[in-house]
Amino acid sequence: MMLTGQHLIDGAWVGSETQLDAPDSPLPSVHQISEDQIDLAAQAARAAFRAYSATSPSLRADFLDTIAEEIDALGDRIIEAAMAESGLPQARLVGERGRTTGQLRLFAALIRSDGYPDIRHDPALPDRQPLPRPDLRLTRIPLGPVAVFGASNFPLAFSTAGGDTASALAAGCPVIVKGHPAHPATAELVARAIAKAVTRCGLPQATFQMINGAAPAAGAGLVQHPEITAVGFTGSLGAGRALFDLCAARAQPIPFYGELGSINPVFCLPKALETRGAEIGAAWVGSLTMGAGQFCTNPGVLIGVKSAGMDALEAAVIEAMAEAAPQKMLTDRICETYSGAVEELKGKIPVLAKGRDAVAQRNGQPMVFKTDAPTWLGTPDLHHEVFGAAGILVVCETVEEMDAIAEGLEGQLTATLQLDMPKDGARAQALLPVLTERAGRILCNGFPTGVELGSAMMHGGPYPASTDSRSTSVGTLAIDRWLRPVSYQNVPEELLPDHLQADPTGA
Amino acid sequence: MMLTGQHLIDGAWVGSETQLDAPDSPLPSVHQISEDQIDLAAQAARAAFRAYSATSPSLRADFLDTIAEEIDALGDRIIEAAMAESGLPQARLVGERGRTTGQLRLFAALIRSDGYPDIRHDPALPDRQPLPRPDLRLTRIPLGPVAVFGASNFPLAFSTAGGDTASALAAGCPVIVKGHPAHPATAELVARAIAKAVTRCGLPQATFQMINGAAPAAGAGLVQHPEITAVGFTGSLGAGRALFDLCAARAQPIPFYGELGSINPVFCLPKALETRGAEIGAAWVGSLTMGAGQFCTNPGVLIGVKSAGMDALEAAVIEAMAEAAPQKMLTDRICETYSGAVEELKGKIPVLAKGRDAVAQRNGQPMVFKTDAPTWLGTPDLHHEVFGAAGILVVCETVEEMDAIAEGLEGQLTATLQLDMPKDGARAQALLPVLTERAGRILCNGFPTGVELGSAMMHGGPYPASTDSRSTSVGTLAIDRWLRPVSYQNVPEELLPDHLQADPTGA
Repeated sequence: MMLTGQHLIDGAWVGSETQLDAPDSPLPSVHQISEDQIDLAAQAARAAFRAYSATSPSLRADFLDTIAEEIDALGDRIIEAAMAESGLPQARLVGERGRTTGQLRLFAALIRSDGYPDIRHDPALPDRQPLPRPDLRLTRIPLGPVAVFGASNFPLAFSTAGGDTASALAAGCPVIVKGHPAHPATAELVARAIAKAVTRCGLPQATFQMINGAAPAAGAGLVQHPEITAVGFTGSLGAGRALFDLCAARAQPIPFYGELGSINPVFCLPKALETRGAEIGAAWVGSLTMGAGQFCTNPGVLIGVKSAGMDALEAAVIEAMAEAAPQKMLTDRICETYSGAVEELKGKIPVLAKGRDAVAQRNGQPMVFKTDAPTWLGTPDLHHEVFGAAGILVVCETVEEMDAIAEGLEGQLTATLQLDMPKDGARAQALLPVLTERAGRILCNGFPTGVELGSAMMHGGPYPASTDSRSTSVGTLAIDRWLRPVSYQNVPEELLPDHLQADPTGA
Repeated sequence: MMLTGQHLIDGAWVGSETQLDAPDSPLPSVHQISEDQIDLAAQAARAAFRAYSATSPSLRADFLDTIAEEIDALGDRIIEAAMAESGLPQARLVGERGRTTGQLRLFAALIRSDGYPDIRHDPALPDRQPLPRPDLRLTRIPLGPVAVFGASNFPLAFSTAGGDTASALAAGCPVIVKGHPAHPATAELVARAIAKAVTRCGLPQATFQMINGAAPAAGAGLVQHPEITAVGFTGSLGAGRALFDLCAARAQPIPFYGELGSINPVFCLPKALETRGAEIGAAWVGSLTMGAGQFCTNPGVLIGVKSAGMDALEAAVIEAMAEAAPQKMLTDRICETYSGAVEELKGKIPVLAKGRDAVAQRNGQPMVFKTDAPTWLGTPDLHHEVFGAAGILVVCETVEEMDAIAEGLEGQLTATLQLDMPKDGARAQALLPVLTERAGRILCNGFPTGVELGSAMMHGGPYPASTDSRSTSVGTLAIDRWLRPVSYQNVPEELLPDHLQADPTGA
């Protein structure tokens, strides 16, 4: 399979006049999509929508399974491309591939299940007074063509065939992926796998398309196209907010689901600190430095009250950090941004512990800072996500200071409590409502990295964690992003969608 | 009960320095909220949120039932105030009051039911390889303080204690209503009824608040306040879009649910025309002129193919219109806007039939225009909603012209088919996907006015029918507007919300 750096538009691989360098990629260059090509892709997606949205859930499930098969069939090649482009290690990428195909199969299983699509039925009451009640049947239908922006930090699971693509295809929406410039060969391999699945399943070619190009033109042109009806995005606050603003300012505004990251605070309660302060400190460093800290659920701040347990935690952090190796980051630019953010933090608060020196190029050095509650509360800059293995330890004088930190938090993907029951129960009861108002996922005695796939996962949260706190980007609930309700009133049964015919709810 | 024209802020009725005239109202004047007062109300709502959101669904259900009781206890006074202010007739307002209390009781029943709030549970799998699965429980929680903007055309059912207020209170969100300037006495009476219910149920005083004032300052200040987390709105495209834009441009964007109206096309298929053209024509005029046409579901355009049946329909329209009486409209301004829009239409397409002359002040004269498909397709101005009893009959030469009209529609609340099965089945099958892509509710052999309350109603649609096609403003699904999912991972059972404890799904 020859890789081209081209765009996949309506089933054909096509190039553009302008091309961009593709550093660290097996590809020599990547094509920069033109406005006309964006229009072609969007029109093709619209044309494909009517047929694709009318396919049965079972055909779409087969399609998702076939994509997973075709990704598996790429074998080592996809891992090698992703390793070269992302700098992520083999084991991590093999795991991520499993997550990616697992996600596709999860949505296949969801839409094959009896409960899908959901139905509501209010049967007619012809004798009701003063007016008869009509027959009303409600189901949900796909929105239309969807644009997906993948993430640099998950070249497989949150990219070309990632969660947003899987859930949108499951819902019945054609997808146009804007390929991530940090991993164009990986993206093209996956796009070719999806294109094979499209053909094998006999679906319209424009069910899945991919375009390449640098920000902001490519992305802006895509989300502003009148035929695009919703956008899924994983990335930075700056880029995400810019695209959100474009979506809101359209003549016809559309939903923009941006997952923008978070500092994921970890609150350590007194008894947990007393019992296992050192253990928590070491585990935090493990979670903080994993994958060079390049997770949106990276636990960037840990808060506890001064105590012997907190001292033990601090000592364990210093000890663990001494062993923390520098790791290759995803791109030169991400590494530079990380190093710059660390330098800025150094100007504000003291360093508690450094990881081993970053000697190789594009390596980030792990770093833990330490501060007190008044400094944290008085320095909003400390509350911004640093994408990389940098954390801040906040040592409070009192539990009231810890409460004030919780109350002052911006929106988060996650908030974590380290606690030992029953002793920490009362403090946890006080903190939980505060944290729940500010986060999408609350967890106890673990760390937020590792976002489980399943039916009960919420990955999102109040702004700026995401642009739409009503929605998740991970787990089966994500299919709701791409659906809207429609009521059918007194529509003859033979004209209704199959699953709405014949007393759908047995009512 | 003395009415004041003041604001209800944190349990107290307070006035402002500036006051506005209140034409047609029992009130001499209405107070214009100040920025500081908006801030007080929003802060009070935030302070009330933690306690109110933690109340049991059963207490909130009692609260909703109590509001309904207190509205009923207002007796004739509320009907008289609404008649004076809106010009709507008594029978209509008595019906609307029943709808209002019915809505409150519907949401009470919803949140008392076993299925509420919904729960998802992925139980822990401690032995899973390579990593154990944590226990994950997902539920939905209220967003926070909500702002509600009522509609002029439903002074009860879509206003102070209307659908948005009922669903938001049911969800656990404190509500601040921006009272509609067209019916301030009605609004104050209802607000006083709600305030009594707040006290009777022992809830925080700021669970419900109401502010008064003229646009744009009052509304803009409210939706831009940082403590407001979502907005419900029913009204015009212009006002709704302006508020939507403000919500999207906030530092923390918030959901804005605007129901902005629609032209609600009615497509008449050949066999139905042949069988009952005259009947359809007369029924259309009835629906079009009901309530002076002041419904967002008013069927503003009827489309059919030239035929003997269509001639019969046209003749019946002319006959019915000759009897159509002018009716008092909601406000002077609405009547002026209606008359202006009718004059503009007269400059573009011919009048087919007029209702009786409008002799009294603030009366709108019913009017039906007639045009052909090329004129309709080539004149986008014809596609805009005219709020009032004006309709357009589009006579097509061919069914293909009818298809083209369907394909060219903007987003609609409803789309209607008049059809006779089985003869019209094939044409209906062709039109249904097109209409479903453009509307929130599809109905057959009826008219869209009369929006049923229930579990299977969708009242909303693609923009510009509403600003969020994923959401309904009528029916039980409306509670979703004010909720967001939260996952609890490995949280000790005794710390979980009651309904998530102890194997919530029996899994």
